[in-house]
Amino acid sequence: MKLKFASIAFTITLSTICQPLFANNTVKPSPNGISLPEAYKDWKVISISHRTDNQSMRTILGNEIAVKAAREGNTNPWPKGSILGKLVWKQKAEEHWPTAIAPDKFVHAEFMLKDSVKYKDTGGWGYARWLGLDQKPYGNDKSFALECMACHTPVKGNDWVFTTPAVMP
Amino acid sequence: MKLKFASIAFTITLSTICQPLFANNTVKPSPNGISLPEAYKDWKVISISHRTDNQSMRTILGNEIAVKAAREGNTNPWPKGSILGKLVWKQKAEEHWPTAIAPDKFVHAEFMLKDSVKYKDTGGWGYARWLGLDQKPYGNDKSFALECMACHTPVKGNDWVFTTPAVMP
Repeated sequence: MKLKFASIAFTITLSTICQPLFANNTVKPSPNGISLPEAYKDWKVISISHRTDNQSMRTILGNEIAVKAAREGNTNPWPKGSILGKLVWKQKAEEHWPTAIAPDKFVHAEFMLKDSVKYKDTGGWGYARWLGLDQKPYGNDKSFALECMACHTPVKGNDWVFTTPAVMP
Repeated sequence: MKLKFASIAFTITLSTICQPLFANNTVKPSPNGISLPEAYKDWKVISISHRTDNQSMRTILGNEIAVKAAREGNTNPWPKGSILGKLVWKQKAEEHWPTAIAPDKFVHAEFMLKDSVKYKDTGGWGYARWLGLDQKPYGNDKSFALECMACHTPVKGNDWVFTTPAVMP
C-alpha cells in the first residue's frame, strides 16, 4: 500500500514538473525537434504585413526577449533566446469597408528561434511552422528548414529577418 | 519635525496611490476626458487590417476584457470594460520583399471604450485618438466623437465595431 501511495505521489509530482514541457502535447513538434512555443498568441506585436503576392495577412509577435530587443532597436543580431512568431491568414475584404483588407481563414503559425550554437547549421535560427487550426507540423524531415533559409537569404545581412519592428510611441 | 515626516509620508503615499492614474501624465487626455490607456502597446492582438483606400496598416489590440470576449466570440455586444486599441501606420513596401506591405511612419493610436451608461451619448462607446509619436489628443472639443460615430454607423448592428476578431488556433 505504501508503495502504491509512493507511486501515485511520484506520478503526480512528475506530471506537475513536466507540465510546462508538455502543455502543448496535443501538438506534435516540428521535424527538427522544436516544440510549439507556449501561449504565443498572447505575445506582444512587433509588426504586421500584407503579402499581396499570395493574398495573405500576417502579424509578427515576439516573446519577451524579442520584444525588448525590438523596442530597443537591438535586432542585428537579435539576442539569444529571441523568438519571432508569425500568424498568417488568407485575406478578405471587410464586409462593411471593402477597401480594408483583413484576415480570413487561418493558414499557419511559423517561428524563428535564435540560438547561434544550437541552430548553427541554419544561420543561428531554428525554424518551425504549424499548419492550420489543427497545427500540423510542416515538413517531412528536418531538411525543411533549408527551404526557410533559402527564402530568407535576401535578408542574411539583416540577421535573416525580413521584419522591421514597427515604430510605436 | 513629526509634522514634516507625516507630510513626507503622506506625499509618498499619495504619489504611490495616484501613480496609475497619472503615469501617462505627459500625454494629455482626449477632449471628452478619456486618458490614454496604460501599456496599450503590450495588449494582445485581436486582428489586423490594411486600408488600401488611404494606404495605411493597422493592428487592433484589446485589453484583457476585450481579448477574452474576442476569443470566446462574445462580441455583440462587447462586454462592459472592453477597450479596443488600434495602432495605425502609413504603408510601405518591404525593402527585400516589395510585394509585402508593412508599417512605415506611425500615424495615430485610437481607442473605443465600452460602457453603455458612461458613453450612452455615443452609442455606448467612448472614442479617443492620439496623433503621432508625440501623442497629441485628436479633436478641438468633445464633439469630435460624433465624427467617429458617423464613420462607424455602417456597423451599428455589429455593436459599432468594424473589426472581426481574427481566427486563431
